[in-house]
Order: sequence, then C-alpha cells, then structure tokens
Amino acid sequence: MEDQQIAEKVSHLSDEELALYRLRHSLAHIMADAVRQLYPGTKLGFGPPIDNGFYYDFDLPVSLAAEALPKIEKAMRRILSTGHDFVREDMDAAAATERIAEMDEPFKLELVRELEQSDTPTISFYSHGEFTDVCEGPHVASTRKLQKVAFKLDSIAGAYWRGSEKNKMLTRIYGLAFQTKGELKEFVRLRELAKARDHRKLGADLDLFHIDEEVGVGLPLWLPNGTVLREQLEQLARDFEFQYGYKRVSTPDIAREELYYRSGHLPYYADSMFPPMTLVEKDAQGEEVSKDVFYLRPMNCPHHHKIFSARPHSYRDLPLRLSEHGHDYRYEKSGELAGLLRVRGMTMNDAHIYVPEEQAKEEFKRVMELHLDYYRLLEFSGWHMRLSLSDESSEKFIPRPDLWKRAETICIEAMDEMGLDYEAVRGEAAFYGPKVDVQVKNVVGREETASTNQMDPMAAQEDRFDLTFTGKDGHAHRPFVIHRAPLGTHERFVAFLIDHFGGAFPTWIAPVQVCIIPVSTDQHEYAETIRKRLFESFVRVETDDGNDSFNKRIRRNTTRKIPILLIVGNQEQSDGVVTVRRYTMQKQQQRLPFDEFVTQLLAEIRARKWVK
Amino acid sequence: MEDQQIAEKVSHLSDEELALYRLRHSLAHIMADAVRQLYPGTKLGFGPPIDNGFYYDFDLPVSLAAEALPKIEKAMRRILSTGHDFVREDMDAAAATERIAEMDEPFKLELVRELEQSDTPTISFYSHGEFTDVCEGPHVASTRKLQKVAFKLDSIAGAYWRGSEKNKMLTRIYGLAFQTKGELKEFVRLRELAKARDHRKLGADLDLFHIDEEVGVGLPLWLPNGTVLREQLEQLARDFEFQYGYKRVSTPDIAREELYYRSGHLPYYADSMFPPMTLVEKDAQGEEVSKDVFYLRPMNCPHHHKIFSARPHSYRDLPLRLSEHGHDYRYEKSGELAGLLRVRGMTMNDAHIYVPEEQAKEEFKRVMELHLDYYRLLEFSGWHMRLSLSDESSEKFIPRPDLWKRAETICIEAMDEMGLDYEAVRGEAAFYGPKVDVQVKNVVGREETASTNQMDPMAAQEDRFDLTFTGKDGHAHRPFVIHRAPLGTHERFVAFLIDHFGGAFPTWIAPVQVCIIPVSTDQHEYAETIRKRLFESFVRVETDDGNDSFNKRIRRNTTRKIPILLIVGNQEQSDGVVTVRRYTMQKQQQRLPFDEFVTQLLAEIRARKWVK
Repeated sequence: MEDQQIAEKVSHLSDEELALYRLRHSLAHIMADAVRQLYPGTKLGFGPPIDNGFYYDFDLPVSLAAEALPKIEKAMRRILSTGHDFVREDMDAAAATERIAEMDEPFKLELVRELEQSDTPTISFYSHGEFTDVCEGPHVASTRKLQKVAFKLDSIAGAYWRGSEKNKMLTRIYGLAFQTKGELKEFVRLRELAKARDHRKLGADLDLFHIDEEVGVGLPLWLPNGTVLREQLEQLARDFEFQYGYKRVSTPDIAREELYYRSGHLPYYADSMFPPMTLVEKDAQGEEVSKDVFYLRPMNCPHHHKIFSARPHSYRDLPLRLSEHGHDYRYEKSGELAGLLRVRGMTMNDAHIYVPEEQAKEEFKRVMELHLDYYRLLEFSGWHMRLSLSDESSEKFIPRPDLWKRAETICIEAMDEMGLDYEAVRGEAAFYGPKVDVQVKNVVGREETASTNQMDPMAAQEDRFDLTFTGKDGHAHRPFVIHRAPLGTHERFVAFLIDHFGGAFPTWIAPVQVCIIPVSTDQHEYAETIRKRLFESFVRVETDDGNDSFNKRIRRNTTRKIPILLIVGNQEQSDGVVTVRRYTMQKQQQRLPFDEFVTQLLAEIRARKWVK
Repeated sequence: MEDQQIAEKVSHLSDEELALYRLRHSLAHIMADAVRQLYPGTKLGFGPPIDNGFYYDFDLPVSLAAEALPKIEKAMRRILSTGHDFVREDMDAAAATERIAEMDEPFKLELVRELEQSDTPTISFYSHGEFTDVCEGPHVASTRKLQKVAFKLDSIAGAYWRGSEKNKMLTRIYGLAFQTKGELKEFVRLRELAKARDHRKLGADLDLFHIDEEVGVGLPLWLPNGTVLREQLEQLARDFEFQYGYKRVSTPDIAREELYYRSGHLPYYADSMFPPMTLVEKDAQGEEVSKDVFYLRPMNCPHHHKIFSARPHSYRDLPLRLSEHGHDYRYEKSGELAGLLRVRGMTMNDAHIYVPEEQAKEEFKRVMELHLDYYRLLEFSGWHMRLSLSDESSEKFIPRPDLWKRAETICIEAMDEMGLDYEAVRGEAAFYGPKVDVQVKNVVGREETASTNQMDPMAAQEDRFDLTFTGKDGHAHRPFVIHRAPLGTHERFVAFLIDHFGGAFPTWIAPVQVCIIPVSTDQHEYAETIRKRLFESFVRVETDDGNDSFNKRIRRNTTRKIPILLIVGNQEQSDGVVTVRRYTMQKQQQRLPFDEFVTQLLAEIRARKWVK
C-alpha cells in the first residue's frame, strides 16, 4: 500500500529531508480539509508529499480550473491560523473499516478493505480539527508549525484513481512547499529558467530537430539548424582528436549475430538491442542457400576491434587510437524516451584506444586531459566526476579479479596524479572494466552523464577478440582497451549545449552566425555586398530585408538568438562600416570597418571563442 | 544446351564481332586438337569463344601447369601451318550418339544423349584434319584463315564439368585472341594496368578498407587511410554544396514500415531492402502494448520529405536544398557483391531539392553545373551522360503522362540549353521521373554509373507525401523534387578514385600527405621540428626514421604512393630547407626553404590542386 511505501521511504531520509517530508505531507491534509469545506461532497483519493511539495487527488462535485487555487489556498491559511494538533490513532483493520464506512469515503474504504484482507494488524489515522485521514504519517506536531512555511498551490491535472485507465478520473491539485519563502521563490525562478531552456522547447523554437511518428519515436530528424550543431561538434572532435593522435575510421551500422556472440552483447545485452533481421538467401530454384542474422549495433567497439585485428601491429604503432562518430541503436521503452536525452538512435563521439598495459595510465590521463580541454572550451561548470568500480560479490562483472585490480589501480592512480576530484562508487563499473563518468547538472539540478572514459582489460583476452601486438621482446601481448566518449552522443550533448547556452550559442557553433539587417531598402545593395563577402568565407549568414519594420526585424532575429546582428544604415553604407550587435552583449553595439569585422569574426570562429 | 545458347548469341553480333567469334571458336578447336595430340587419352568438355579469346575444358591424363602452355601453343601453330578446312556435318541424334560413342568421349556422349532425349532433330559436327567435335559452329572456313591471327594461351584453371561441384574437376585452358598483334598487345597492357589499379588490390595494399566475414560481406570496414578518402570527399561536398546553397540535415538509418508504405518502397522495392525488425513492447505483466516494424532504409528520400513537411514553407524559401551523407542499406545477393563497387551498406552524397516547377529547369542546370565542377576538379575523363526517359507502354512507371511530359521536357531543355552531350534512352527512367546518369569507364572500358541527377514530379503528389509550399498567390502548390548524388556513394566513388588515380592521390585527399625521410640519424631532430610544424597545421604527416637504409625507406614510401616525400640531409638541416620529391614527378626533385614549402603545401591542399 502507498502508506507502507511511504514509511519505507522515510527511513532513508536525513533530518532535513524528513522535516520537509512532514510539512509537505501535513499540507496535503490541510489542502484536503480546505477542499472538503469549500466543496462539500468531495471524496478523497491519495495525498502524498512529493519532490518540491505535495498533491492530493479529489473526486469533486464540481469541475475546477486553476482560477480556484487562490480560494483554496486562502481556506488553507485560515485553517493554519487556528492551531490544531496532528493526532495519530491506531486501530485494528476491522475497526478501521467500520470507521471509514461511517466517513463515506469510498476510495479510502477500498484501500482499508484491502489492508484488512492482507492481514495488516493495525491501521493508523491522522486527524487535525474536524479532519481525519487514513494515513501512516509522519506529520508535524501541530498546524501551528506550518504557519511560517512557504507554500503555494501550483496546478491542477487529471489523474486516474490508482493510476489505472480503468478507474475513475480524479482531480489532482499540486502544491509547492519549502521551509522559507526564499527557497520557494528560487525554485520557481529556476523552474522558469529550466522551462525556457528546455531542449525540447528550444529544439522546436529554434528549428533544431523534429520527431515524426511515422519515422519512429526516439529517432530524431535533425533539421538544418540542429545539423549545424552536430557537424560543428563533430568538427571540434576531429580537430582535437587529430591533435591527440587519433585516426578516424568508418564502420557499418549493422553486423552479423556472430560478432555479438563473440563480443558478449548476445545474450547479455540483448534486451537493449533492436530485434534481429533474418536474411535468407535463395538460389534460382528458391532453395535456401544461406541464412544470416543481422543486428543494428548498440555500440561500436566490436567493429573497431575487427579493424584492429585486420592488420598485425607492433608496439611501435601503439597506442592506436581509432575514433568514429558511429551510429548506434538501443531499445528503450517508448514511455522512457525523452527528447534528445533518451533516444533509440544515437551518434557517439566514440573511440577505442589499444594500449600496452604499461602505457595505459599515461593514456588514460591524456583522455582526461582531452575531457578537460572540451569542458574548458565550452565553459561548462557544475560538473563532477564519478569513478565506477567493480564489486567482487556481484555477478554483473567478468570474474577476472587480477585484471580488475590492475585496471582499477591504473584509473585511481591516473585520477590522483592529475589531482582530479572524483567520487568513487563500488559496483557501478561497466561489466568489462572501471570507468570515469562526468556528470553534468542543469539549472534545476537534474544530473546526467555527459562523458565517459573506460578502462577495458578484458576485450583483448583470448575468450573474446584475441587482439594482440608484437612487443619489444618479439612476443604477442594483449593490449588494454580504453573506450571513451568525451562528447557523449550528439543527441545528449546537444541537449546539454542547448541548456548550457540557453539556445544562444557561441558564434562558431551557431546555426546562423550573422544576420544582416538593413535599416531600409536604400541599403539592400550594400547588405548584399557584405553578405556575399561573408558567404564566400563560409560564414553562415542571412539577410533580413523583409517588409517588416526595422524594429520588428531586430526583435525577430533577437528571438532567434543569432549571435551577431549586423545593422547597416545610410551612415554605415557611406563609411563602409557595420554596426555589430551581439546577442550576449545587447547593450554594447560596436561600429567597425567591415574588413576589420570580417577579420575579427573569422578569428573568433577559428578559435571557437565564446564572446559574451 | 550450350551450343544452342551460342547460336542464339551469334544472331545478335555485328559482322566484326561475328568474325572474332568465328576465329576464337576455331582456335578453341585447334587447341583441343593440339592437347589431344600432346596428351593422348585426353577427354574433351566444353570449348566456347569468350570475351577476348576462348577456353576449352579437358580431362587430362596428366596434371598441367602454366609452364606447359608454350608447348601447346607451339603445337597449335604447327596445326595452323598445315591448311585444313573446317567441315560441317549434320546427322540425326541416334547417328550422332553412335558416332560419339565410337570416339570414346564420355562428356560429349552425355551431351548428345541429352539432345537425343530432348528430341533435337539434327546434331552438327565440325572437323578439321583428324579432329572432330560436336559443335553448332560457326567457324572460319579454313585453318589458313587463322595463320595471321594474334593469339596467346593465357592461363590454366580448374573447372567442374558443367559448373557443378558434384561433377568431376576438369582443367580449363584460357587463350586470348584478336585480329591483330597490336590489339592483343594493347589488351594485355590495359589488363595489367587495370590489375595494378584494381580497387580491391590497392584497397588492401594501401590499407584502405577491409571486409570481415563476421561483420558481413558487402559491409566494408574503412581503415584509417580509407576513412581519410571518405571524409575528404565529404568535406569537398560540404564546401561545394555550401556555395550552392544547400543545407545539411541528419536523419536516422531506420524508419517504421508506415513510412515505406507511404513512399511506395513497400511493397515495390521490398526485394532490395533488408528484412524487417519487429519490435514488440510489453508492459510489466508481459502483455503486448505495441508492435512496431522497422526497416533499414534503402534511400534517404522519405526521411528528407519528412523534414520538409515538418515546417510550413513559402515560395521565398525555395528552392530548399537538403543534403545528407546518409547511410543506406540494400540487399544484394552475396554472389553479386564486388569490393566497393557492389555493397550492401553505403553512404550516399545525397540531396533533395524542393523547387517550384517554374524554377525546376534552372535548378536542374545548377545541379549539372555542380557535377561538372566536381569532374573538372578531379580531372575525370572518359565519361558520358545518359538521359533516361520513361516509356508509356511499360508498367514500371507511375502512370501520370502529364507529369512525365513536363518533367522530361524540363530535363531535355536543361541539357540542350547547357550544350551537354548525352545519349537519351527510353524506358530507363526511375519509376518516379527522368534522370541523367554520368557513366564513367575504367581503363579496360568497364562502365559504371558514378553520379545521378533525377527530376521527380511525383513525390509531392497527394497520394504520396503531400509536400506543399505557399505560392505568391497565397495558395498551396506542389514542388518538384530533384534527387541528386554527384559523388554517388562513398563506396563506388572511392573505387573510381582509386582506379582514376591508380592509388596515387592528389595531396588534398591522400591518406598520408607528407612523409619526412631523414638521410641519417643526424637529422632526427630537424625532421621532428618540421614534422611538428606540419602536424600543427593539420597536415597528415609521418616520419620514416626507421633502421632501414635511406634508399629502402625511399622505396617503401614510394610504394605507398605518398604524394610528397621530404628528404632532409645535413645540407638541408644547416640551410633550413627541404628536398621535395613528388610521387607524380619523381624525376624533378625540388629544394625549397621549409617555410616556403609550408606555404605552398597549404595553398595546394586548400585549392585541392592535383600537381603532376
């Protein structure tokens, strides 16, 4: 039962969390009291505390809109102003059933009858004043405790009784509640900010991506603007990885099942894979010649291992760093898909580094350096690193304690020698090795994994891919393999970038970099001259010389968050200058000779600077 | 029977081709005569003329190696030097069977008995001198006619009797035969060249790609060197398409079957598609919630149409040019797969242009211009254009004669107004519209389609994707759609480039652009200084300072066809210069101050120049 679940939850809470839990739970009761007073005949459903507040489900004799919330809130404050204690009363199930039957609460009755049938020995009630509810608690001692609390009724929604479509639709009222007004205000502010920055909203507003049911949920179509973000990220990775000595490869999105039996994805990872394609080849007579089973790949590693093993290698060639923005497909339940954050088709900033064990620590550090390079360039903050280790007692991990020990020591020493802060977590490693994940938080504190660096001592072992190189001693040795994705997948990383920049991207990555706005039709020719010059330098430039007023055109292209608006009036035209208005510095327009602007702009793009 | 097939073939031949056919067929008999004289007890299989020559299958009492060919050739010339007429004799099947039985030729007897059972009325024999063969002909009149002919025995191979593994393995001897010595010599020369340039051979020699059975045939893994070719081609397209006003998009490799029913790929194109993936989603109780059928896409068009229809469009936005290097998968029989030329997984230089009908001709021309730009840059020659049109009498084409007429007129006028030569072919159009294909030939004349430009008036019609834009008149209109792929697929186009450049790529696209070769260990430091400088400018540079002799290192890196070798000796080191040795100009080494070399090199790469 719900109340029992609550009781279990409560035992894990800190003092502070428990205090919030009590006050939110108590406010739910107060709200139910108020609603019943205002709308006699109301029947009660569930009313638990939740993150940031509480809700209660009602079967109301009237239909309510958001306009009713202030009235209910007022009634709640009135109840709070008259002090009542919260009083607990325990009784056996039969007595509880009798009591509820008297109260004429059919939903509560259904619950208590179930408790009775499941032989629950005692059932508790909480009351304040005239109001009584079947409830496990805990609550605050008295309504007086709630008088200084900051709360606010938030929204109304429909909710089926016990979450099932077969049941009656009830009215759910949500409230926010915090210890102080400051906390409530801050929460509302951040929630507004998060809403404005939500990648799904901005993805639609800025024409970045589109989901089409006929193509499939979780399979975003990247519109031209969003594709610029992807391709610029990919070029960034290409440039940085070139400097770090990576070699790009390109491999197919599918493979025969044999490959996945070798890699261990089958059967261990099968639940997360798309279903197989069975290709039956027939001869002219229609007789079966061969039968191949193909899978969409969930990861690129097996393909890269095949590239490594396609040629012999000497220790002189290592570390060999193979990188690819490969396409991967994973099955996620449709209900769990969320914009770009959880998808079924993704493009990963992937690489596999084949490295002798003696050099693995050094290389692991270089990968962490690369992570830091990206995070510095993008000016990410609010991230932290998590080192996930194995757990000998768990069966989730390949049982090679010797290799685990060596791989984990390498990772721990690498992180410590670099002086990087991290949280170590036992039992969260990949099945083949330890890893460092970088966790980023959005403005409301939602945490997601953005990047990963994994040390795999297993891939090259004889029971898997049998990858070897010839050492200085002339003998065959097995490399360690580092799997890494500092820029994660395009899908998630673009979602982070949208959130991080609030859709106002730095010039180098912005879908449209410059928009030219002539003050009037008199400057159309000059506007076209400068547009052409920028276009020839591969700047993503547009001109808005439509029929709308100058101010309307400024507003429209500001809404589009284009980093640079170039305003050209008669003065600019005759002087050969442009007025530069940056989205990130709207108060500080700048007049510049056009040639100087071009030089500055191209340098800014080349250096991937974020001017703000 | 084989001879009957031959007779059917002969009826299609020109006089010239028939003359070659006769002489090659006659030489096959002469070879059989010679082999029987040299190796008594030899039994005869088939012996037809083929492209470029002839063969005969023998059941020999000895095993033969290529060393025996000159001896057989000598015996053939001896036979030719004594004039014999080729004499034809017809008889009924029973008489033929009796005659063959006397000749003790078990394979021929098997054939003739089958002919007898199939009620073939007459069976013909051809004889010259003592030699007789069951044969439909035709032959030359006399062996004297063959004395001036140029022929050469070519190779020996094993071949099962009648091509079946269940039968006996015979010895097949191939011969080449032409009317003149010049023709024979030219054929041998071109064949050598084609062999040296074969993309499968060079693909292995230059570490470009690899096929792995566990991944799947027809699904190449691109090694680092080959990936450079792909990515440089992609960057070339990105640059040119930017200038031509294209917008890049990115779409998933799969879609639900609904999309392909809408596009018409299902059921019409189903045979060329990979088999479906059926995704069944279940709830916590294991009950089926939904069932989705996904397909790997064979083409990108439906995804691009979905992008077009995701937003409303005005005539002001058109032509809208959406381009993507999309991954496509098509089912080809495993026996028909050939290196990169025929694969199952491909990446296409694809784009779809949505254009009002009135602007379609102009846009079609722009696409042809883009084709010519590429062909000029790559210095392709020996290509020609083929304009494929519909055929009203065929059911292969969507039956909208009005739209066909308009689309075909647009294409014909566009080609004519540009003054482009083309061959028009009725009945070879795509099912949805006319197209211009560019056909390229390799050195031995093998022709393949490299590029395509297609005018599709059907995609936007209401029974398909219902794509519309708002015209100047405020009403909805249906655009024409141009499908185009000037650089074809990466797979085929890289195969053409390998062949075209013989693996010696221009610097801009070469996997390794510069290899530094210090004369001795004294210059290692200088070599490293210049390597670093080039690497920092994103030049793909290596140093070969291994233990091998200078000459051996020069030879090794010449074999790798690296466009530029930089030789640095003591003199170069003290003068701050480099000696530049280009693969394409090996006789003309050049000494240059290093800074000047860098400037030249970067300009050459930027301009994608082919220095030779």
